[in-house]
Amino acid sequence: MAEKKQWVVMVTAQTPTNIAVIKYWGKRDEARILPINDSISVTLDPDHLCTVTTVAVSPAFDHDQMWLNGKEISLSGSRYQNCLREIRNRAGDVEDKEKGIKIEKKDWEKLHLHIASYNNFPTAAGLASSAAGFACLVFALSKLMNVNEDPSQLSAIARQGSGSACRSLFGGFVKWTMGNKEDGTDSLAVQLTDEKHWNDLVIIIAVVSSRQKETSSTSGMRESVETSLLLQHRARDVVPQRVLQMEEAIKNRDFASFAQLTCADSNQFHAVCLDTSPPIFYMNDTSHRLISLIEKWNRSEGSPQVAYTFDAGPNAVMIAPNRKVAVQLLQKLLFCFPPKPDTDMNSYVLGDKSILQEAGFEGANGVEGLPHPPEMKEGEVSYFICTRPGRGPIVLHDQTHALLDPETGLPK
Amino acid sequence: MAEKKQWVVMVTAQTPTNIAVIKYWGKRDEARILPINDSISVTLDPDHLCTVTTVAVSPAFDHDQMWLNGKEISLSGSRYQNCLREIRNRAGDVEDKEKGIKIEKKDWEKLHLHIASYNNFPTAAGLASSAAGFACLVFALSKLMNVNEDPSQLSAIARQGSGSACRSLFGGFVKWTMGNKEDGTDSLAVQLTDEKHWNDLVIIIAVVSSRQKETSSTSGMRESVETSLLLQHRARDVVPQRVLQMEEAIKNRDFASFAQLTCADSNQFHAVCLDTSPPIFYMNDTSHRLISLIEKWNRSEGSPQVAYTFDAGPNAVMIAPNRKVAVQLLQKLLFCFPPKPDTDMNSYVLGDKSILQEAGFEGANGVEGLPHPPEMKEGEVSYFICTRPGRGPIVLHDQTHALLDPETGLPK
Repeated sequence: MAEKKQWVVMVTAQTPTNIAVIKYWGKRDEARILPINDSISVTLDPDHLCTVTTVAVSPAFDHDQMWLNGKEISLSGSRYQNCLREIRNRAGDVEDKEKGIKIEKKDWEKLHLHIASYNNFPTAAGLASSAAGFACLVFALSKLMNVNEDPSQLSAIARQGSGSACRSLFGGFVKWTMGNKEDGTDSLAVQLTDEKHWNDLVIIIAVVSSRQKETSSTSGMRESVETSLLLQHRARDVVPQRVLQMEEAIKNRDFASFAQLTCADSNQFHAVCLDTSPPIFYMNDTSHRLISLIEKWNRSEGSPQVAYTFDAGPNAVMIAPNRKVAVQLLQKLLFCFPPKPDTDMNSYVLGDKSILQEAGFEGANGVEGLPHPPEMKEGEVSYFICTRPGRGPIVLHDQTHALLDPETGLPK
Repeated sequence: MAEKKQWVVMVTAQTPTNIAVIKYWGKRDEARILPINDSISVTLDPDHLCTVTTVAVSPAFDHDQMWLNGKEISLSGSRYQNCLREIRNRAGDVEDKEKGIKIEKKDWEKLHLHIASYNNFPTAAGLASSAAGFACLVFALSKLMNVNEDPSQLSAIARQGSGSACRSLFGGFVKWTMGNKEDGTDSLAVQLTDEKHWNDLVIIIAVVSSRQKETSSTSGMRESVETSLLLQHRARDVVPQRVLQMEEAIKNRDFASFAQLTCADSNQFHAVCLDTSPPIFYMNDTSHRLISLIEKWNRSEGSPQVAYTFDAGPNAVMIAPNRKVAVQLLQKLLFCFPPKPDTDMNSYVLGDKSILQEAGFEGANGVEGLPHPPEMKEGEVSYFICTRPGRGPIVLHDQTHALLDPETGLPK
């Protein structure tokens, strides 16, 4: 180990979130987080939705510590512990000749870590913050510790933090193969296509407020596995074929098939939730209205214009085949779910706001950073986020992005 | 045929509605109305929810005519035609010596009918009015025409009007066996137990208003059969065992099993609706709140206090094991869903209002007949109906109940 005691080495990374188009719901192994079926997701543009994580190591740190969105959180849970253990097991030698620092493989056991993580979207909005979070943690640590594994191998580690996190190790379209091995080493993510393959797609997210605290996906899927008589049938007899069809639709950029499969699989996932005892309701009346809006439109045109999918919450993720249809979608959405009178359009449509002008809405200039969401009211859309398929994790080399102080290793 | 041309012979009957505790959803034969699984229902007390139908025959009538709730409706649909044809095929000789009227079997082909029907509850409230309606039509005609068939045989005719109507030919608990024959003659209802067998049960219905026009159950179940990948699994692999368990629970008055099966089957039916393309939402946020209220209560007590079930609409039908629990249920319901400030409790709790006093609510005296429901507002309970398991169809001999004029055969 280096003589100089007070050095801090750190890495900052940015990782996207993802939304499943073939859903993951149900584990066959709770501890290892092994799913009962394959799933497929699209990675969302990290410019609009991402996690940034800085990981630091220093001989001055006397225990592992983590801060999420500026607040210290415990690392004692098994999910964090599993990720840290797996990454430490794979750590390599690290040398910074310029700073005269050398960390050998064996040193990592004794060194402690500081971790700071930040989501550029509200954690509570139900936008899979844990997926991006664990993916970013594992990715950043792998860079810091010089772990010599490919992204799929890393995904199997991130999976042990949060199942869907494994799909955030890649851009574009990603498949999480459930695997067969008992130890879970073959339950990992692979990239189906990168984000350039189908770059016409536009994604609009409606963040829907809800009065009720939702069932966590962890306990929800456990209860579904234990009580739903439909879940096993879905996992065994429905999903395998859908996964093949979805891979084909993505490969061929066949939007009609893609939309049909995406909507059907979202609805089936929520059907299984309803078949759980006690039943789980993630969608509310606003979610239903959003679905009806799209279904009516799709039906009137005779072919799918827009796909929708809902995760474990009332938010709608809507996918349009191109900019032109996305503009029409946004117009319909703003017509049916207008902002409250005192709400500025700039705080009602977030992300890629350029679409606002195309949709004929004034006052979309002078866009600042992501503002805080307006106060939520039950059964309404809080705001929209316009985005697109995006890239996988990257290291942010510019030190200004670091969330930890390079001298002290404490949150800036 | 009798010489005197202007006679009118008529029969008035009252038939209960029913609520399924193991659901019917999906036909294997659309024309004959043959289901894909058995179903089980409880008949509701006709004092609170029923249809009254008067059927009349006269040589003076020149075509079949029907009035529903005072408005003439068409009899040309195949559902009415099938019922009328099947009943006419089984008509017998009728003689009224006192009036000097004799109708022979063969005469029925040429004679025309007047039918007037009335529901003692709002038709639009989604309380299975068609079930009671077709059951009452078939039952009343069978009496008028001296049809020599037992109630199960009549149920197979009523089934051709509306599937669930077959279960309204009996009181108590009723099973509709799906049958195997292609012609549907073995798809009929049988009584499991009469209404006295489990007469502690108390049933409270929450009539929930909804903004959206609901998908009719006929088209909804057709779409489920065509598009849901879960429905066949439910019909083939889930329901058969549930039916056996439910029969056992009813026989033993085992409320815990009864409640568990009732809730699970209602939720699974709605799950299949959600798995349909496009998805069908019958329950809304108010329905979800009612379920959560009961699930929380059941969980806190460690055993089912109350069962709930929802048909093709947002109304909750809640079943309590006895009066004591029903009083607690009503208290909880009125606490969570209070009447609007200008609403009298007497127009907010209908049916068996005596329970209101037990629940400690004043002003429940001076109860009149069923008032019209208060104006509906989305996402709220419009009113409650307190009732219990009830008897099957009866003939109302008192002429004051007749809905047709005994001289003219026209609506009174």
